[in-house]
Amino acid sequence: MSNTQTTENQKINTHEISRAPFPASQKIYISGNNDIRVPMREITLSDTDGKKNLPLAVYDTSGPYTDPNQDIDVKKGLPKIRSNWIKERADTEQLTEFSSNFTKVVALEEKKNISTFPNVPLPLKAKTNQNVSQLHYARKGIITPEMEYVAIRENQRLEELLASTDRNNITFQHPGHDFGANIQSKAVTPEFVRDEIAKGRAIIPANINHPEIEPMIIGRNFLVKINANIGNSAVSSSIEEEIEKAVWACRWGADTIMDLSTGKNIHQTREWIIRNSPVPIGTVPIYQALEKVNGKAEDLTWEIYRDTLIEQAEQGVDYFTIHAGVLLRYVPMTAKRVTGIVSRGGSIMAKWCLSHHKENFLYTNFEEICEIMKAYDVSFSLGDGLRPGSIADANDRAQFAELETLGELTHIAWKHDVQVMIEGPGHVPMHLIKENMDKQLEVCSEAPFYTLGPLTTDIAPGYDHITSAIGAAMIGWFGCSMLCYVTPKEHLGLPNKKDVKDGVITYKIAAHAADLAKGHFGASVRDNALSKARFDFRWNDQFALSLDPDTAREFHDETLPNDKAKVAHFCSMCGPQFCSMKITKEVREYAEANGLDSEEVIPVGLEKMGQEFNKINKIGNFS
Amino acid sequence: MSNTQTTENQKINTHEISRAPFPASQKIYISGNNDIRVPMREITLSDTDGKKNLPLAVYDTSGPYTDPNQDIDVKKGLPKIRSNWIKERADTEQLTEFSSNFTKVVALEEKKNISTFPNVPLPLKAKTNQNVSQLHYARKGIITPEMEYVAIRENQRLEELLASTDRNNITFQHPGHDFGANIQSKAVTPEFVRDEIAKGRAIIPANINHPEIEPMIIGRNFLVKINANIGNSAVSSSIEEEIEKAVWACRWGADTIMDLSTGKNIHQTREWIIRNSPVPIGTVPIYQALEKVNGKAEDLTWEIYRDTLIEQAEQGVDYFTIHAGVLLRYVPMTAKRVTGIVSRGGSIMAKWCLSHHKENFLYTNFEEICEIMKAYDVSFSLGDGLRPGSIADANDRAQFAELETLGELTHIAWKHDVQVMIEGPGHVPMHLIKENMDKQLEVCSEAPFYTLGPLTTDIAPGYDHITSAIGAAMIGWFGCSMLCYVTPKEHLGLPNKKDVKDGVITYKIAAHAADLAKGHFGASVRDNALSKARFDFRWNDQFALSLDPDTAREFHDETLPNDKAKVAHFCSMCGPQFCSMKITKEVREYAEANGLDSEEVIPVGLEKMGQEFNKINKIGNFS
Repeated sequence: MSNTQTTENQKINTHEISRAPFPASQKIYISGNNDIRVPMREITLSDTDGKKNLPLAVYDTSGPYTDPNQDIDVKKGLPKIRSNWIKERADTEQLTEFSSNFTKVVALEEKKNISTFPNVPLPLKAKTNQNVSQLHYARKGIITPEMEYVAIRENQRLEELLASTDRNNITFQHPGHDFGANIQSKAVTPEFVRDEIAKGRAIIPANINHPEIEPMIIGRNFLVKINANIGNSAVSSSIEEEIEKAVWACRWGADTIMDLSTGKNIHQTREWIIRNSPVPIGTVPIYQALEKVNGKAEDLTWEIYRDTLIEQAEQGVDYFTIHAGVLLRYVPMTAKRVTGIVSRGGSIMAKWCLSHHKENFLYTNFEEICEIMKAYDVSFSLGDGLRPGSIADANDRAQFAELETLGELTHIAWKHDVQVMIEGPGHVPMHLIKENMDKQLEVCSEAPFYTLGPLTTDIAPGYDHITSAIGAAMIGWFGCSMLCYVTPKEHLGLPNKKDVKDGVITYKIAAHAADLAKGHFGASVRDNALSKARFDFRWNDQFALSLDPDTAREFHDETLPNDKAKVAHFCSMCGPQFCSMKITKEVREYAEANGLDSEEVIPVGLEKMGQEFNKINKIGNFS
Repeated sequence: MSNTQTTENQKINTHEISRAPFPASQKIYISGNNDIRVPMREITLSDTDGKKNLPLAVYDTSGPYTDPNQDIDVKKGLPKIRSNWIKERADTEQLTEFSSNFTKVVALEEKKNISTFPNVPLPLKAKTNQNVSQLHYARKGIITPEMEYVAIRENQRLEELLASTDRNNITFQHPGHDFGANIQSKAVTPEFVRDEIAKGRAIIPANINHPEIEPMIIGRNFLVKINANIGNSAVSSSIEEEIEKAVWACRWGADTIMDLSTGKNIHQTREWIIRNSPVPIGTVPIYQALEKVNGKAEDLTWEIYRDTLIEQAEQGVDYFTIHAGVLLRYVPMTAKRVTGIVSRGGSIMAKWCLSHHKENFLYTNFEEICEIMKAYDVSFSLGDGLRPGSIADANDRAQFAELETLGELTHIAWKHDVQVMIEGPGHVPMHLIKENMDKQLEVCSEAPFYTLGPLTTDIAPGYDHITSAIGAAMIGWFGCSMLCYVTPKEHLGLPNKKDVKDGVITYKIAAHAADLAKGHFGASVRDNALSKARFDFRWNDQFALSLDPDTAREFHDETLPNDKAKVAHFCSMCGPQFCSMKITKEVREYAEANGLDSEEVIPVGLEKMGQEFNKINKIGNFS
């Protein structure tokens, strides 16, 4: 794989994987115990009038792809950084064959249609009567390497920055008037991570069969995370596209990826994605189960579904969306809705329930599902099959009835020490968002919430990344742990690479806005570094600190392409004669030179002030 | 001018003005007294299984341009629909020459450089001792045609729709479970409009020298409005571009336009824009005043500024941003900020104050400014020259000190019966937004608030339409009356046509999300109509009801270009085999056929239900 320049126009059909490092950035690794090496992206900044600006380490989801020292071969997959950690716990065994019938028999059929990942590893499974979930370890008081890893990762080396003697560009927390010291929340410790997991308030999705992941944590006392959906469907897509889509989504900031494939060959496609994904992978197993019965929901059986869970668990899927809360008696509650049931999984289960006049088999077999989950440490993402699909249907009886059931199931999962998060809506007007969050925390005993947006209006198809970013930022602030992105193509078509990037960046904005509003430890450091670069007219620093340096630079260059403009003390908005930033600098220089930092000073030195200011003014460029 | 297809790729240099009507839409006019004809866009919808869906009238800011029956000639300007209303009040006189020295002498110089608007009208002015402001009339108990106009306009014909016997697709208010009758807020009456204006809670910006506008109202008990900024600068742009940018911004939903030109020939450019603008025009007169002193802030004088106010008032500018709250003693409060003073007007006045060691001349001459404003009915937009330019600086002492002064000035303006709104930030993290709104309402005695965003994080240049839409939607919900748009080019460069459209659509989303959250009268009708169209797979209706039908259709067609897909009961997200909407329809049909609308029904008829469902299922397309 060669390094390629990433541009918006890159064809989705390319066989190349995006690997270009970010501008002014290098991959660094922070060491911990147990050979832990936590990757971060360190952004180097230029000086301000000879005064050094410290480099900034930012949370990095892009994986080994952006490390030029790493060999990448999608046919080999990523390095298995967790293998030793798992091995050393000595509670797993490697099976001699796959447990799923489908894997043993039918998955081989797919080989005729599609290139197969070479050397598929045989699966690990918990030894008999063992439980390999992070929740299980946490409750036993064990701090796993995964927990230590996420603690280092969440802190983004901010404590180091804080301890530095040169803190001129560090403001830790809003409000920024008190530079450099105003810290409201604490750095994360491994013990805090363990405790949050033990309480069920956070999860580390980390299947023992996905040793390639760089562990991450989902919980409301940590950075707000985002998920990007990818997946082929009956209508389009290829394996190469899907791998690059996943790499591409992680590059821009996706913390987890959901593979929502519904078309052919989804077993093999998933294998390629998992082996090459540095982030946890989620799936909705009912989609594949439905494929196995040729799309006939009423032909689904517990046995087929169960085999699908095992098939995917042994491939390494880190969390399963399971719509076990769609109960038979809730289905008619949706009949008078404007948009009925919009969750695919929810509608499949509703159809199954009605056609068999039986209770949802995911609900009735929930304890057995837990047994499977804990043997591989697959986390639950309890699906909201009855989420609202329009503003009109938000927060209705069907939605909240299902949520109550998800709360009941949470406690069953916890009884088995299985990690759980809860999925949420959907379409919700702003004034009803908080009710969703509060109710979820109460009913589901603080299990992490994971919402799709929510979209705050229905009238802007083509812009639903924006209608939903408003709701996502708000619910993130209120306590939602992970935000499932929405792309501009939502409701209209399949996202291409540009859409995936637009969706991811938009959701990074929402998640970060939420972190700021929560007063999360050090969340404002990057904002302040960028604002300071802006104020200093350090254009290249401003681009490098952006969520999307390519677009920031491209937009700037559209008006002022000349390289000289990158150091010019003006920009195209006002032109060289007319710059408020420049005037402020003069005001500040004058104020500093005269020890003038409060209004009390003004009356005593008015005359002198005016004269001095005019003197400085003649030296400056502004006339 | 010929009609042109509007596409994203249209060159900004075109001399043509965008006029294409919207799909499935026609311009209608609702009549009132005094020859009032309020334009709306009526969207025609197709049937649902033979059942008629009523056409929907939506608020229309696009002006005569989208009416194919209107002749448009930018050299003649738009029809002067308010002329008779102004004349009949008999409190104005037409001057025999312009009052401004600049207009009389220097503006003529511009004719050498730039084509001049033909037949510039001589200005109207209030007769001696008369006050022609809408606030003055409102306080005298007079309902002007402008007030009646906005009352009709705000209601969007919803009462008519409500009174209709066929209300199958009408849901007036969230929550939508109780179809068609759940109205929480009231329709607007002309008397309500008058009363809100009299109380200072709303304004109708409507200069007597801008008779071309279709009146609109800004106030928190009305629909949330948005403003789009246009304007050339020293670096680029032409008159043709600016006119088309204004028309283009109104086409997509801008309620007012601010002309922020800072380059050459701004008098003539403004004339072209005003004569061709169907929406109120705002300016920042200090920009032009600064041009008159060759960019030297310290050379500004009250006399030059005063002449500029009169010059622009006699052209027809509807509201002036005036930074009269930037007091000398507040300037040093900004010295320790991360980004100092970021308002151009604010920094100009700060510089003037410091270099003259005198109080802001806009503050000291405020009563005389009021005399000018009331002679033409120009509204104040009291500028927030000390607004924060970064998250770190939000809600600081400088910002709130200035706000206190704006409150003081509001009462002086009201003493003169001059209409006032207050400008607000800027950059504010989510948790500090409400404090801004609450403080503004308290300090400024409920005068309408008009904010720029606010941006909720600083780390996403290139996406600041989104970082700010989050804050804009929230502050709109909390009571902000008008949202000044931010384009993707903010902080980076000058917006092109695509950026203007992206900014406008994004802000329509924010404003509408706010209207929904406020429970504004009928706000959810369009959402519900679109959601119902989506559920019915009425693709063309879905596009037509969108804020941006072109993009919605284009995105859909990217995956499924075939025209048959427009009536297909599936979409590219799931494909024909796998559609949750379709399954829900089956659930609903079954539930309806069996009178099954609550969970109580389930236990009694389980067996029958299953059999019947399977029967229906075989008839449907889903297999």
